[in-house]
Amino acid sequence: MATHAPGPADSSSVAAPDRVAALAARFAAVRAHSALLSAPLSAEDAMVQSMEDASPAKWHLAHTTWFFERFVLGRDAGYRPVDPAWDYLFNSYYQSVGPMHARPRRGLISRPDLAQVRDYRAQIDERMRALLRSGDLDSARLDILELGLHHEQQHQELLLTDIKHAFWSNPLAPAYHDVAPDPAGASAPLRWVTRDESICTIGHPAWPGTGAFAYDNESPPHRVLVPAHALASRPVTNAEYRAFIDDGGYRSAALWLSAGWTRVQAEDWRHPLYWDDACDREFTLAGWRDIDLHAPVCHLSYYEADACARWAGARLPTEFEWEQAAAGLAVDGRFSDDGALHPRAAPTGAGLQQMFGDVWEWTSSAYTAYPGYRPLAGALGEYNGKFMDAQWVLRGGSCATPRGHVRATYRNFFPSDARWQFAGLRLAKDSA
Amino acid sequence: MATHAPGPADSSSVAAPDRVAALAARFAAVRAHSALLSAPLSAEDAMVQSMEDASPAKWHLAHTTWFFERFVLGRDAGYRPVDPAWDYLFNSYYQSVGPMHARPRRGLISRPDLAQVRDYRAQIDERMRALLRSGDLDSARLDILELGLHHEQQHQELLLTDIKHAFWSNPLAPAYHDVAPDPAGASAPLRWVTRDESICTIGHPAWPGTGAFAYDNESPPHRVLVPAHALASRPVTNAEYRAFIDDGGYRSAALWLSAGWTRVQAEDWRHPLYWDDACDREFTLAGWRDIDLHAPVCHLSYYEADACARWAGARLPTEFEWEQAAAGLAVDGRFSDDGALHPRAAPTGAGLQQMFGDVWEWTSSAYTAYPGYRPLAGALGEYNGKFMDAQWVLRGGSCATPRGHVRATYRNFFPSDARWQFAGLRLAKDSA
Amino acid sequence: MATHAPGPADSSSVAAPDRVAALAARFAAVRAHSALLSAPLSAEDAMVQSMEDASPAKWHLAHTTWFFERFVLGRDAGYRPVDPAWDYLFNSYYQSVGPMHARPRRGLISRPDLAQVRDYRAQIDERMRALLRSGDLDSARLDILELGLHHEQQHQELLLTDIKHAFWSNPLAPAYHDVAPDPAGASAPLRWVTRDESICTIGHPAWPGTGAFAYDNESPPHRVLVPAHALASRPVTNAEYRAFIDDGGYRSAALWLSAGWTRVQAEDWRHPLYWDDACDREFTLAGWRDIDLHAPVCHLSYYEADACARWAGARLPTEFEWEQAAAGLAVDGRFSDDGALHPRAAPTGAGLQQMFGDVWEWTSSAYTAYPGYRPLAGALGEYNGKFMDAQWVLRGGSCATPRGHVRATYRNFFPSDARWQFAGLRLAKDSA
Amino acid sequence: MATHAPGPADSSSVAAPDRVAALAARFAAVRAHSALLSAPLSAEDAMVQSMEDASPAKWHLAHTTWFFERFVLGRDAGYRPVDPAWDYLFNSYYQSVGPMHARPRRGLISRPDLAQVRDYRAQIDERMRALLRSGDLDSARLDILELGLHHEQQHQELLLTDIKHAFWSNPLAPAYHDVAPDPAGASAPLRWVTRDESICTIGHPAWPGTGAFAYDNESPPHRVLVPAHALASRPVTNAEYRAFIDDGGYRSAALWLSAGWTRVQAEDWRHPLYWDDACDREFTLAGWRDIDLHAPVCHLSYYEADACARWAGARLPTEFEWEQAAAGLAVDGRFSDDGALHPRAAPTGAGLQQMFGDVWEWTSSAYTAYPGYRPLAGALGEYNGKFMDAQWVLRGGSCATPRGHVRATYRNFFPSDARWQFAGLRLAKDSA
Repeated sequence: MATHAPGPADSSSVAAPDRVAALAARFAAVRAHSALLSAPLSAEDAMVQSMEDASPAKWHLAHTTWFFERFVLGRDAGYRPVDPAWDYLFNSYYQSVGPMHARPRRGLISRPDLAQVRDYRAQIDERMRALLRSGDLDSARLDILELGLHHEQQHQELLLTDIKHAFWSNPLAPAYHDVAPDPAGASAPLRWVTRDESICTIGHPAWPGTGAFAYDNESPPHRVLVPAHALASRPVTNAEYRAFIDDGGYRSAALWLSAGWTRVQAEDWRHPLYWDDACDREFTLAGWRDIDLHAPVCHLSYYEADACARWAGARLPTEFEWEQAAAGLAVDGRFSDDGALHPRAAPTGAGLQQMFGDVWEWTSSAYTAYPGYRPLAGALGEYNGKFMDAQWVLRGGSCATPRGHVRATYRNFFPSDARWQFAGLRLAKDSA
Repeated sequence: MATHAPGPADSSSVAAPDRVAALAARFAAVRAHSALLSAPLSAEDAMVQSMEDASPAKWHLAHTTWFFERFVLGRDAGYRPVDPAWDYLFNSYYQSVGPMHARPRRGLISRPDLAQVRDYRAQIDERMRALLRSGDLDSARLDILELGLHHEQQHQELLLTDIKHAFWSNPLAPAYHDVAPDPAGASAPLRWVTRDESICTIGHPAWPGTGAFAYDNESPPHRVLVPAHALASRPVTNAEYRAFIDDGGYRSAALWLSAGWTRVQAEDWRHPLYWDDACDREFTLAGWRDIDLHAPVCHLSYYEADACARWAGARLPTEFEWEQAAAGLAVDGRFSDDGALHPRAAPTGAGLQQMFGDVWEWTSSAYTAYPGYRPLAGALGEYNGKFMDAQWVLRGGSCATPRGHVRATYRNFFPSDARWQFAGLRLAKDSA
Repeated sequence: MATHAPGPADSSSVAAPDRVAALAARFAAVRAHSALLSAPLSAEDAMVQSMEDASPAKWHLAHTTWFFERFVLGRDAGYRPVDPAWDYLFNSYYQSVGPMHARPRRGLISRPDLAQVRDYRAQIDERMRALLRSGDLDSARLDILELGLHHEQQHQELLLTDIKHAFWSNPLAPAYHDVAPDPAGASAPLRWVTRDESICTIGHPAWPGTGAFAYDNESPPHRVLVPAHALASRPVTNAEYRAFIDDGGYRSAALWLSAGWTRVQAEDWRHPLYWDDACDREFTLAGWRDIDLHAPVCHLSYYEADACARWAGARLPTEFEWEQAAAGLAVDGRFSDDGALHPRAAPTGAGLQQMFGDVWEWTSSAYTAYPGYRPLAGALGEYNGKFMDAQWVLRGGSCATPRGHVRATYRNFFPSDARWQFAGLRLAKDSA
Repeated sequence: MATHAPGPADSSSVAAPDRVAALAARFAAVRAHSALLSAPLSAEDAMVQSMEDASPAKWHLAHTTWFFERFVLGRDAGYRPVDPAWDYLFNSYYQSVGPMHARPRRGLISRPDLAQVRDYRAQIDERMRALLRSGDLDSARLDILELGLHHEQQHQELLLTDIKHAFWSNPLAPAYHDVAPDPAGASAPLRWVTRDESICTIGHPAWPGTGAFAYDNESPPHRVLVPAHALASRPVTNAEYRAFIDDGGYRSAALWLSAGWTRVQAEDWRHPLYWDDACDREFTLAGWRDIDLHAPVCHLSYYEADACARWAGARLPTEFEWEQAAAGLAVDGRFSDDGALHPRAAPTGAGLQQMFGDVWEWTSSAYTAYPGYRPLAGALGEYNGKFMDAQWVLRGGSCATPRGHVRATYRNFFPSDARWQFAGLRLAKDSA
């Protein structure tokens, strides 16, 4: 049943030169961004794995490189890998490619060292450039290359969230960078943006095809009946979240999902992940800082986002409500390229603010397949579909997402208890 | 935020005599059915808790009784409970009522013994009958009484699934009853029943209100766009599931959700929960029996149902597809009142078979709130809503469900790895 | 290497009639004592297993019976067991006999029920009586019979400690019996009994041989140099232990073994197992009672006994110091036959008090083999030797030990964290 | 009860100049040896913690330095630490000094990095040299300095055993060094060296006092009656251990302690820790090598050593038998200074061979206090005594022990399941 071809096999025509040039430029840019993000890290920093959900930065750097080697370069029958042993080390979860190193043990790998991994990156970059220059690429291979770039961008965000957790786990609380905090702008008052019941088309045309890139889990486009509702004009702020705390939010069982309440008690949750107990300071990639009350709250689990919405007499939006609202907007906002790497107060202005960037927004939609969903063929079919179980959809990207990575149809997903992502919430309401 | 009034407070008028009479009759019948189901159990049988998810039969008998005492009788300010200490022992999960005995420790309670619990049932039955005779019941109280009857029916099914697991855990494999196996009828060939895209109304009017009972999670009715699709005419049979096994279903990572594959390997799953390794025999409430190849497969986790559907080139239906198809059908089928307590081959005939009874059908719908969902007020609001997290909806009832308990809008729910329920699957397909 | 003969094979002579008669009488008495101890228990009480270390009373009753069936009756080639399936259920840890039911799952076995187990006891008693009447017993078989009686006595004590834990685990705190508390006698002041360095013979001649019964771990007798030391005239009392608590004993890391301190913190130990937090009341087999300050403290782990001794500027005695002191004393004291089942204040009088009965005394001797130690042959060699790892020796018996079971050379053993036995301590000191 | 003075306070006289000079030389040598041992490690290698029992090399380097800073330099009231935060990071288990970083999280500390730790070592070395030059050292301080040197030597051995485990955990199996394997010498045939019963003096005079250094757990000297026995002339070889394996040693329950057998089955042990499944190759600090059949077997748990001795019809020696035999021998053998870091075949020759070096020898003596044992005063009293619980004594040192560190009275200790030390066994027998 499981075929082992590493990707879509249906397009064998030689690729258009323009596409090759565009992808070559994008390849250079994406690869350079990974190098930039990892530049502040010592070899030792790059090896820390502070919890099972996180991976060492070095692993992110190697795994994204392995992806190009295994799935693009490795399509040549005679390809000789830089080191055959690394297939085992740097495979994440592709069962059809072969066995893999256990995820919780990624932090034990001192060798290859960071210098070797950087050298590995340079070698693969050179081989990829040579391949791109050769003109010997059919469109199937270009598709995988393009997928690999989006894949690397996802890991760029994880590299930041994982190193944040690693540094927070160190009693010395080192900072990743020393950007000055933004002068706190006042956040605009929350307004409600209403919409009547309608049938709208959700999702993105399947890729690869004639159009732009999207992951398989965003397709196919399909019609959904979206009921009448109202969306908040901006995400919930730190000030609003502190009001939830001050009102006993973390002590009121009635506000919580059952498993969330169990977790609150077992782990003594009293505030978002990186806050101090006084709720005045938070750990950021720039070290411990005062909490900006006007900025969107983040590092919430789904449990906390859901409880806060219930406390506010509202609810989380569905992913359809969110996508319908985002469909007409420019994909603009604060992304990782800005360098702040921390959410900031919403701009003032009419309409919906901060739909993209700053913080991922938990939705009330479980992460399941769209009607007619088909995973990619071969090993890359393991990319998304097999995780459609006990996770929630998040939308919109964050201050740690690379600019250009997200879009209105983009579906991120995490389980209910994940707190180490830059995830917050936007309120929604049923409307009569 | 959490109010502690134990139920809907909006209806204070004295209830119509007809309703009282109807509920009194139903109360007698439901309570008698629990007694009947527990009759084959010794005091020791009724105390076994063979895993955390299960509860002892004695606990089911006491907890359902406590529900009437606490929420119906206990509404009188001066009510004196049979034993105040039992509030702690027999509360399941109502945080707003007070602290409770830890679920995994329910099997340690030798006292009160089964005779005391049966006496407790008799006392509460008598008090309830007196209350019903008194005429002193407003409609709010009758509502809770009615809810309590549906609640007890749910526990009747759990009592059966839990004692099945308990007996299977005993190396001596005792039988609950000794009903002879049904002569195996041939199962009808699988046909596909197709339906075009349509907008249909899903769900049940909120209860209590003017209409019939339903749980809060079934409401409100709302419009859903259901895409074109096909449904299998009957559930997957044991013969078909054995073909999945014989084809290497449990050894093919590509068929499984990621967490499901991890579980298959960690626990060495090779077949449904109660089958022997040769896949010839299965443990039933009547002890070990030959597997009837024509009967629907059951005791599957979601992971197994999902993998089998993928292997078959199909998928699980959504709960909307299922409900739309069930809406026009009589709620008829094999339920626990029939006494077989094991699924049997589908009847022949046109149209959809076995939509109700025999086996619960896993759907591909995550268990989340309908648009406009409102939990019941007070403690009873903890009944359903707080479990809307990491579970899947099952539909249709099983051979262990009491007749009269399910309906087309009924939403059962369990997490992905639950195998001890009578749960199988019906295939579905997208249609062009 | 592992032979499978179930016991000593070296003595095949027919046994002396006097020994047969003595053992028959003892068999009747010991078996009757088990029945007496289990009489207050309902079928449900007898099934509770409140922690992995404990076993259900029903299991104790069955296992001790199985021991006679398997190792005495079963020596006949043609023996037909009462139920062959019970070999699996009621084997405790005899690997050479075959596989066994997992210990933590003993509480799940509702069938055979208590009535069946009592009937099993009656059947085996009858078969044993017939065998004893037949005269067809060689001395090897009589040896195993004798061992089986001591074995059953050990389980009589465990039956009591296990049911005490089970009842304490029930929020209703049922009592096993309702014996009135003893009028508290004043405890004698603690005196020190000193002894000069000497070489003494420790241990008991190997059994079976020419002498009286002892377990294999008590032999062979061997010479030990015991240094000069002083022993306290009586065990530490509840009053003295409360002084240790009041002085911050449970909060002073410096008093504790490292693993003990970890446990104190992880489980928030603040007092002996069955005390309430006010240190005024304790749970006994007669329910909750006021603590008798003059009685010996019990239900201590080794960690607590060791810390208390260190706090007192003393230490625990070695098992050699203890045995040397006990060697000359009558084996007299409060045992389970007295019916109190709880330790009481020491009698006044000269010399060492309460060396036997009331509370087991933790010694500072790890449980290891004596020089020249040889386990019994065959399966019964698994009785003691394979547990010589990470346990400490306790001496003297308790109020839950059957009279006649212990002796000066008797070595009981438990790991450092065991608290549910009637275990206390006697202080010792080096002397100049 | 717990005083906080960091060491013996009873000797305030200014130290003799000769002792100062000797300790200064020894300080330089020991510190240099740590640098030498860690030289082959990259910053990333030095951070790996591959299991809870092990620590990163960087941590060993820092902790041993902190010991001098905290306990020697820190005795000055006005002392300013290099970094006050490191007290928390580099304290191992001294409860009386304050809270400490959790042991299992030592591998998460990327900062301070290895360069900083090396700089820390240099700074403390300089301060220590200045202190030694100043002449301002009373004997109490010199005592702690001396203790600190022995302490660092212990960590030198752990650094090697921990990095060996770390490298073995890496699928790439890097080598620590590339020393060529020793040409395998034939091992001498095993002879038995017998000794009659005698009373001998065991242990070492308490330090600090008038004599040479020893740990507190080696004192006081005391008389012990050692029974007649025989000791093997050399440790068990790999060839002999392979015969144990080939004879089904790992499949015979009867050979094992109960908890050992459970472990064998749960973890599928089939050979010593670092052997391959074919029992031909073993992982060494020089990478994978052929097993030298003549060399002593090592990396055994106590369970394995004990089972092998039982299989051989022998037993492990007591620590008294071992010490009595070692007392008259030169402390000579293969130690870590030789550079091989792997055990080699025993030299031929009369008498007992390899009593010191090559492999630690498990004894059958539980690690408990000698009669009259007194821990050091203050925090340093936590060094040994609090671990006297559920561990066994090992004697003699290994190929990873620094020369000059062990002596005949030296007591090493590990729990029954520890396998990552260079631990083997020597057989012993009772003699008539």
